[in-house]
Amino acid sequence: MKIALIQLNPVIGSFAENCRKMIEAAEDAAARGCSLAIFPELAVSGYPPLDLLERRSFVADHQRAVEGLIRGLPPIGVLFGCFEARPERPGKPLYNSVLLARDGVVVHRTRKQLLPTYDVFDETRYFEPGPPGELLHFEGVTMAVTVCEDIWHSVVDDYRVQPLAALFDQAAAAGRSVDLIVNVSASPFDRGKEAVRQSIFARLCAQYQTPLLYVNQVGGQDSLLFDGNSVAIRADGTVGARARGFAEDLIVFDTDLGRGDNHRPEPVAEVAAVHDALVMGLRDYLHKCGFAKAVLGLSGGIDSAVTAALAVQALGADNVLGVALPSPYTSAESVEDAAEVARRCGCRFEIMPISDLFTAFKTALQPLFGGLPEDLAEQNIQARIRGNLLMALSNKFNHLLLTTGNKSEMAVGYCTLYGDMSGGLAVIADVPKQLVYELARHINRNGEIIPLRTITKAPTAELKPGQRDQDDLPPYEILDAILQLYLEEGYGREEIIAKGFAAAVVDDIVRRIRINEYKRKQAPLGLKVTSKAFGFGRRLPNVQNYRG
Amino acid sequence: MKIALIQLNPVIGSFAENCRKMIEAAEDAAARGCSLAIFPELAVSGYPPLDLLERRSFVADHQRAVEGLIRGLPPIGVLFGCFEARPERPGKPLYNSVLLARDGVVVHRTRKQLLPTYDVFDETRYFEPGPPGELLHFEGVTMAVTVCEDIWHSVVDDYRVQPLAALFDQAAAAGRSVDLIVNVSASPFDRGKEAVRQSIFARLCAQYQTPLLYVNQVGGQDSLLFDGNSVAIRADGTVGARARGFAEDLIVFDTDLGRGDNHRPEPVAEVAAVHDALVMGLRDYLHKCGFAKAVLGLSGGIDSAVTAALAVQALGADNVLGVALPSPYTSAESVEDAAEVARRCGCRFEIMPISDLFTAFKTALQPLFGGLPEDLAEQNIQARIRGNLLMALSNKFNHLLLTTGNKSEMAVGYCTLYGDMSGGLAVIADVPKQLVYELARHINRNGEIIPLRTITKAPTAELKPGQRDQDDLPPYEILDAILQLYLEEGYGREEIIAKGFAAAVVDDIVRRIRINEYKRKQAPLGLKVTSKAFGFGRRLPNVQNYRG
Repeated sequence: MKIALIQLNPVIGSFAENCRKMIEAAEDAAARGCSLAIFPELAVSGYPPLDLLERRSFVADHQRAVEGLIRGLPPIGVLFGCFEARPERPGKPLYNSVLLARDGVVVHRTRKQLLPTYDVFDETRYFEPGPPGELLHFEGVTMAVTVCEDIWHSVVDDYRVQPLAALFDQAAAAGRSVDLIVNVSASPFDRGKEAVRQSIFARLCAQYQTPLLYVNQVGGQDSLLFDGNSVAIRADGTVGARARGFAEDLIVFDTDLGRGDNHRPEPVAEVAAVHDALVMGLRDYLHKCGFAKAVLGLSGGIDSAVTAALAVQALGADNVLGVALPSPYTSAESVEDAAEVARRCGCRFEIMPISDLFTAFKTALQPLFGGLPEDLAEQNIQARIRGNLLMALSNKFNHLLLTTGNKSEMAVGYCTLYGDMSGGLAVIADVPKQLVYELARHINRNGEIIPLRTITKAPTAELKPGQRDQDDLPPYEILDAILQLYLEEGYGREEIIAKGFAAAVVDDIVRRIRINEYKRKQAPLGLKVTSKAFGFGRRLPNVQNYRG
Repeated sequence: MKIALIQLNPVIGSFAENCRKMIEAAEDAAARGCSLAIFPELAVSGYPPLDLLERRSFVADHQRAVEGLIRGLPPIGVLFGCFEARPERPGKPLYNSVLLARDGVVVHRTRKQLLPTYDVFDETRYFEPGPPGELLHFEGVTMAVTVCEDIWHSVVDDYRVQPLAALFDQAAAAGRSVDLIVNVSASPFDRGKEAVRQSIFARLCAQYQTPLLYVNQVGGQDSLLFDGNSVAIRADGTVGARARGFAEDLIVFDTDLGRGDNHRPEPVAEVAAVHDALVMGLRDYLHKCGFAKAVLGLSGGIDSAVTAALAVQALGADNVLGVALPSPYTSAESVEDAAEVARRCGCRFEIMPISDLFTAFKTALQPLFGGLPEDLAEQNIQARIRGNLLMALSNKFNHLLLTTGNKSEMAVGYCTLYGDMSGGLAVIADVPKQLVYELARHINRNGEIIPLRTITKAPTAELKPGQRDQDDLPPYEILDAILQLYLEEGYGREEIIAKGFAAAVVDDIVRRIRINEYKRKQAPLGLKVTSKAFGFGRRLPNVQNYRG
């Protein structure tokens, strides 16, 4: 049997448009001789709809869209994710389901049993866990259908049931074999995720000696970057077909031949995947919000240079405006480097000096500031003048302002709220400084887009004379290593010190992370590329006093 | 038996300080002849610790604190909430528990069974539901101990078990009676919550013909305002003892006499409760963050006037600085009214005109803006100049900046990001405009603190000549009514139109709510006083296209 694995990029709540694309893709699949087409989890609404799921009208309109979809599909089997109302009480009012539609009728239902409730996932907020599933028999092929997390019990120890094992037990009890494992997913990318998925898939194929079809959503949805990378894996663990990463795709897998389309022969390197994820996330955020163009401040430093290169890749050079906003403390080299980045990226470029405005602010504040020495207040004033000018350009010309801060500075609050933190999207907010450098080298792989001097010079905020990041912060290698241990791996201060880091440095970093929570709560959305990003998946009180 | 109901105001993660206060209060209870002292849910860590619960060091340090607490308590029974590690897998690694300590030993454990997973609650993210509880027999008194949500199954239909009913069944099976229902809580305030609690308590007391002791956390924790209001209710539903609202308290209830301390004879009116909640939340946020002083912009309008009055109440007049920042579009009356509010509140007051800075920005932008007409961009520039000046004062003098926007304008985005939305705390962000007026009248109940003209004049943003809110927005009575239906009661556009509101107005408001999600995501924390506040308990995608 030929089966189409179809990864689409939905817009949350665009029921009509999402369904139109599903019908078109299913027609393509039918035209290519497929008997079955498989779409991702919650394909009709897009994933995750979050609290829209609590709106009665949303549930009712979605139901009408599902019914229209089923009527409009071509006469092949179509397996797709959608939620279903659950009128019984007690319990949550919805199931996260996969339906098989055929000739206008729903002939099979599987409800997700393992509801992730960690990091960015809150599925028990909306969904009731499904009852044990039933095998799907379709045109002589017996399938064990699972929804995303249903096959993750081996790596997440939250769960008391094993949906896939139960289906295989069911088959064994009936004296028949399972021909295919199907997993319908909306699984967001992070830099380590592909390896985790690979190991889950490999283990399952080996354990059950059964091929596996994995169909994943693709596209950026706020912070979450769905990578697609749908794949058909043979019983021996080898790849039978593979879809592209970070783009819509349709691949056909022939279960009899054990092979199909392979649109991405090799797994890409981690830095390349992060690059592609960010480009997709940037493009989708702007386009889905209705923006064609972006503006950003170009300081001459590496963060804004990398952000500019990503924006040009995502939107086209003509749609990106870089602005240098030199203050009295900005070096001539910085403005040159900013101009050079813009020239090499091919984007538009403007220079707007802020010295006169800075003077005007100091004059306005003089009656209250009197003879007090300049301090952080004056540094922040400069950053906020820049924020005001960039937002004025954003408002006047309908360009979305991109924020250029990296994860390392966001962690320790080395950034100005309402200043350089202003913007609609924080493109590299989940990229640690060391990975920013790697991204720069990756962007330069076919030619020097980002000037070498931008990569090699010492980072500086240039908000006071002679300022360098390394005077205010630990060296980035140390900072990033500690952040990795503390934020992503969950080690406490004592454990990190035991690994050989200086206690004073660890305490200082842990303190800075704690006291800057309020700042990050007001940050624009960042694109998630690590296993633990600031934002929705990391929930800390602003007010708390834990020092460990 | 005499029992102390003790509501304390913890700081999240301040284990040592929280325990010290618990020991002191337990000693007071012992000195007053109590055999038992009862503290709120998660009393050792404070509620809610959020993702600190995922830190291994936090769990270990908390465990040590619990052990130290138990050793340090006086020789009476002490019932208190804390979390417990749960080494078994699968399942979540913690229980949300209540322990009874006596003479240095834990003699009873009850684990929370109903874990709320809606609005601001994510308890299944951290906790495993507890097993069925056991009756607590203490000095001849049999108690059915429950943890917060465990008695809410009658109003929340998420749950399949009824912990309290199971305990009464257990008693019946053993042929004995239950003498007391105990509920150990951390239940946040909203303006309708007391009535809901009252009806739950009344129903339970009537159903089981048993008295109920309810002990609730008190204090502000980020957005959440815990009201205390601990209470002892007799079997006949009448109040036997009641603690204060919005302040720490210890009340003693005598189970033999059926009466005890009554520190708050009458339930207060809703507007008074909202007022007291906001004052407590403002004070706690600043003090727990280490701020003594606040600064805010005074426009002469009602929102900033009410915010100033609340701040003065919370912090003392000397600790509040009001600043008028007139632009070319600010009327003389507005500056007069701002000065008058400051004078009547007794707070410090400054005037910082922004006209020169506004001109300087227009000059700086002239090369790019050319001859384009003034529009929203210029309005926002003014608001952002004010934001920059106020933040400069905040930074220089270590005053926390208070944001003064109300819920109605936050809902429809009638506010400037990085402008008037700047600040560390959004005091009235969850107060609809109509309720702001009620608060003003309440504040004026003993004398005109807020000048009558500020209450009676038409609201205006004064960002362009002759601007009035009512030219840009529907009348606030209409806006607030639609917001109440759409946000708090979950009605969709069609249902709201069916209630008699104009379709164009409803669609415009629903659209504004949708497209301003990005703005609210960058807003400072607001204090929650309604059943559905913007912020952590309302989770909508920035990017979504649902129109219903």
